[in-house]
Order: sequence, then structure tokens, then C-alpha cells
Amino acid sequence: MVGPARFMNLLSCFELGIIDKIREQPGATATDLGKAVGAKPDAVEQLLHLLVKEQFVSCDEASGGYALDALAGVDDADLRRALTYMNMIKVVALRQLFYLTDSARTGTPFGLKELYGSEGTLYGAVAEHKDLRESWSTLMDTVTSRIDSWFFENIDLPSGGRVLDLAGNTGLGAINTYKLKASPGLTVTTFDLPEKEEECLENFRTHGVDEHCSFIGGDVFDSIPKGFDVVLIKHFLDMFDRDDVFRILAGVHGALEVGGQVNVLVPVYPENITESDNYNVDFFPAFFIGCTMGQGGPQKLSTYKKWLEECGFTVTSTVTKDPADIPSDVIPVPAVLCAEKTA
Amino acid sequence: MVGPARFMNLLSCFELGIIDKIREQPGATATDLGKAVGAKPDAVEQLLHLLVKEQFVSCDEASGGYALDALAGVDDADLRRALTYMNMIKVVALRQLFYLTDSARTGTPFGLKELYGSEGTLYGAVAEHKDLRESWSTLMDTVTSRIDSWFFENIDLPSGGRVLDLAGNTGLGAINTYKLKASPGLTVTTFDLPEKEEECLENFRTHGVDEHCSFIGGDVFDSIPKGFDVVLIKHFLDMFDRDDVFRILAGVHGALEVGGQVNVLVPVYPENITESDNYNVDFFPAFFIGCTMGQGGPQKLSTYKKWLEECGFTVTSTVTKDPADIPSDVIPVPAVLCAEKTA
Repeated sequence: MVGPARFMNLLSCFELGIIDKIREQPGATATDLGKAVGAKPDAVEQLLHLLVKEQFVSCDEASGGYALDALAGVDDADLRRALTYMNMIKVVALRQLFYLTDSARTGTPFGLKELYGSEGTLYGAVAEHKDLRESWSTLMDTVTSRIDSWFFENIDLPSGGRVLDLAGNTGLGAINTYKLKASPGLTVTTFDLPEKEEECLENFRTHGVDEHCSFIGGDVFDSIPKGFDVVLIKHFLDMFDRDDVFRILAGVHGALEVGGQVNVLVPVYPENITESDNYNVDFFPAFFIGCTMGQGGPQKLSTYKKWLEECGFTVTSTVTKDPADIPSDVIPVPAVLCAEKTA
Repeated sequence: MVGPARFMNLLSCFELGIIDKIREQPGATATDLGKAVGAKPDAVEQLLHLLVKEQFVSCDEASGGYALDALAGVDDADLRRALTYMNMIKVVALRQLFYLTDSARTGTPFGLKELYGSEGTLYGAVAEHKDLRESWSTLMDTVTSRIDSWFFENIDLPSGGRVLDLAGNTGLGAINTYKLKASPGLTVTTFDLPEKEEECLENFRTHGVDEHCSFIGGDVFDSIPKGFDVVLIKHFLDMFDRDDVFRILAGVHGALEVGGQVNVLVPVYPENITESDNYNVDFFPAFFIGCTMGQGGPQKLSTYKKWLEECGFTVTSTVTKDPADIPSDVIPVPAVLCAEKTA
């Protein structure tokens, strides 16, 4: 029940600059901090209570001076990553979640309409609203660069293969594919909505992969291009309900020859949903339904495996990231499913 | 970090009517529930994952049917109280907390301005906005009726005394005072802004205490009426920063004769702030600064004691409610401070 208050109390101490100031000047009092950050000392003291309670910060009773406690031991990179997450949750989720019930009833992210007048999904709204875009893209770039390397460690691409990156946005996935899995003759094609083409091709040139990477414009729900040996589906299936996942997988199945491969990267719920060190269940249902799509959300690995097989694929390998290997501030526990078209 | 999502996911399962339906029809599947509540079965299944994780609800893997688990053992009265809290936090806090940093910088509840165009505090905004009022008043009536009886157990009123209920709103506190502490000749006067008079007097008549209770209109920061033996300050000091608390206490001191009494009811932080079973610290700083006043928040009991003594009172007794005696869904841990004007 105190979740929203705790969340914003902590984030606000960073936003106000209170934590940076304590780091710079250990022993600073609420009066010093208030002056430095432009807030009343009373408010600084109130907001720091939670951080003292959690032992992130210590307070010397006699002098009233604050110093970093557990926060002193947190790597700057870890802290930046956690704050990137918190900022995304604040901007993309906090107010929008107020409308979760309406979103679930209408199958649309109702809060985006109420708050931004936006009729579509988050992915449309980020194009038009700078605050959403900055908060969202900053996080997604962090997530993609961290998880992509793990994904490519866990898949095999045939030497010189023709790879299609489904819903590949503006090419980052294709660039990573080429850089991490290069082989003589390997080509990677980003498939996404036509309006992404220009920025995507520009990204290919910037990264020097434009001889090996290309772009095809289209919509996965209309028609998926043929002529590829491997299809990558990364950060995508979890956005949809079962019926749309089946439409996507049927489209991929139709586009591949027998023997063609599909590699899926997707967050998964634990098989035993009561497992408490996996936060996917705590976050994604409300986030996808209330804040991004009005539908979707991850499934268990066994569910994705079953769905792939019901769509005519044979699953050849699966791997789930060990939650213990994921920094505790990172929410998604991802899995890779590799499958082959066998019928 | 997952706090806001967990909070709304749980509340939304109640708002949608999913929990009531499972109670009525144990074994209902996501398809049954979706049909009953008007949401897609996929969304119902997603939102129920968290409740299964927390073992509030169970899911039979074979049939896909849901039944109440821990929720089956929760008393209806307890559940209604928890939902009243959650609704208040949703309506009065969730979106408003987005603006916490601005609120702390400006000393105003910035979110109320952004969301409602309201320039003042929550207490002004509830008068104008039905959604805020219903959510807020429903909770406050519950809290007042529960905590008032405990407060009156812990204070002594002189027989036939003249009692002033400071910032007594529309008279509920005065009515409780008369009903719980009646003695021959006892009178209770509600002191609050003049616009509360009509509703207050009406409440006195409805409760049959209009011969013993009266109303005086005014502002505690201008002048506090004289001629009283006892002043009650309930649910009020925690709304203000130190300087305003001192103005209030100085006003009360000026209005009382030597020997006059003041009885304060206020939520308190634990003396050891790292005590983890007291949620006041998790909630009130962000709530008062971000959602109601733009300032304020409780203090430790020792701080209130010190402030009373600095304002010319001698504290004669204090009692803090044992957090173990408070239902786990109730946030405020209140204390009573009784003091006498000695100089």
C-alpha cells in the first residue's frame, strides 16, 4: 500500500539533488541541504526519513548531519541504471496506472489518452511526446545493449546466413547481430514500419555495417518477407495477447522454408509463479496493460514453448537467465527460445 | 521499484470485480471471469498472476480455475477498510506523487494544481472536487471513528469542563468528545473556518448534542478563542512544518489560563527510525509534501514533547499506540500527548 509513496520519496531525493549533495558534503544538515537544493529544510528532513529507515543514508542524532550509508557502496554505473529504471517507471507508469482498470476493460492504454490525448500505444506516443520518448528510449537502449549480448551468446546463426530482425525498430538489433555474430556473407535485415527506414539506414552507416545490413518496411500483421534463413523476434512477443502472438508466429512460419530457424528473446514468468525473486510478475502485467499496449504481458517459458509448437515449430533449445545473475534493480528475467520450422 | 505497479495491479483486481466473482464462483477460469467483468481473459490472467504469487488467490494448473486463497480468510470489514485506504491512495496520491519534487521545491501540493487546477491544499480541493472528497472523507471518517475512541481512553477531561476542539472540522470530534466523556455541565466547542458552521450545527442536531456543543468560526493562525479549560488538537499538527506548529502552540498557550490543558493526537515516527514495522515513515513524508499540504509530516514523539515544552507547556503524559495493535493495512501509528500550561 505504501509502494507509490516509497517509490517517489526515494526518487525525489535524487531528483532534488539531495543525495549528490550529501555525497559531496558528508555531515551536511537539513538546513545545509535545503539551501543547496532549493527546498525547505523541513521537507528535506521529512524525505530523508525513509532513506534513513532503509539505511541508504545515516543521520547523526547529535549534529543532525547526514552521510551516505549503503548508498556509499553502490557503483555509479549501478546507480545510474537504477535511476534510469525509476525515471522510466515514473514517467511511463506512475500516473498512467491510475487508469489500469479502464485500460483492462477497453484493451487500450487508457492513461495515455487521458494524459497525452494519445489514441494508440506507448510506441506511437513516444514518437510525439519528448518526455515519454526520452525516459523510455534511455531505458530501452540500456536494456537492449545489456540483454542483446546475452541473447547472442545463446543462439547459433548459420555461417553466411540471411537474418531477418522482426520489428527491429531503427536497426540497433541488426547492428548488434552483425557485430556479435559476423561470418562471411552474413546479412541482416531490419523489418519494421516504413517510417523507421531513414533513421535505420543512417544508423547502419554510422556503425559501418551498411554493406551487410538492410531495411524492409512493412507490418508484421500484414505480411512477413520471405527469403530468410533465420528470424529474430526480440522484445516483441510479450507485447501481445495469445491471439496476436499466434498471428505473428503463423506469419513467420509462412515466411520460412522448412529448416528455417526462429530465435525468440522474451521476458518470462517463473514456472512456479510464487517464486519471490522474480519481479516480472510484479511489474509486467500492470505495465503492459496499463501503460504500453492495453494488452500483452510475458508468459511462462513452457507457454511460449507450447505456442511455438502449436504454430508448427520444433523447439530446439531454451535458456532462462538466472535471476541471481541480474542486478537487483533490473526487472526483466529474459529467456531465449530457439526453434526450427519442421512442418 | 515495482511498488506502483503492484499497488494498482492488486487494486484493479478488486475494481474490475474479479475478486468478488471468484468468491461467488470458485473454480472460475480466466474466460469465465473475463466474461463476467467485461475484460479480455488474457488481461484477467495477467492481472491475477500477482495475486497468485502472493497467495491471495490460488490457480489450479489443470483446470485453469481460480479460488480465493489467503483472501478467503480476510474478514469483510478488514477488506473494506483496506480497500478504502487503497482507493484514497490511488485518488489522492498516485498521480500527485509524480510531482513530488516540484512540491518539495515550491512548498505547495504541485500535483493538485496540475491535475485539478487547484491552488491551495488538499483540504481546499476536496471541497471542489467530488472524486477527491469521496475518497478522502470516506477514509477519514473510518480513521476518526477508530482512533478517536482510543484517544478518549487516554485523556482525562475535568468534570463539567469547557472543551475547545481546535480545527474540529464539521463537529465529529466534538460529538465524540461529548458522547465518550460526558459529565454534568461538560461543553464542547468546535473551532474551525466559518464556512463549516452550518454543517457542523446540523451534525450536532442530528446527534442530539446541540445543547452541549457549539461552534466558533475563525482561523487558528489569527486568533484562538479564550475561555476554555481544555484544548484538543487532533489530526492537525502533523500537517505543518515546525514554524507553523510553533505558531499554533503559541496561540493555544495564549488562549489558555495557567493550569489549562492541551491534548494532542498525532501520528508519530518511531524514536528509532529504522524500526521496520512502523509505516508512518514510508508514507507520510511523500503524502503530506506531495499530496496534501506541500509541507508538514509527523515527527517523533520526543520532538513533539520538546516543542510543547519550548512553547510553555509541561507534558504530563504520553502514550503511543503499539503498532502490533493496529491492523496491518492501517498506516498511521498515533500517539497522545497531554500537557498543561505551567507558565
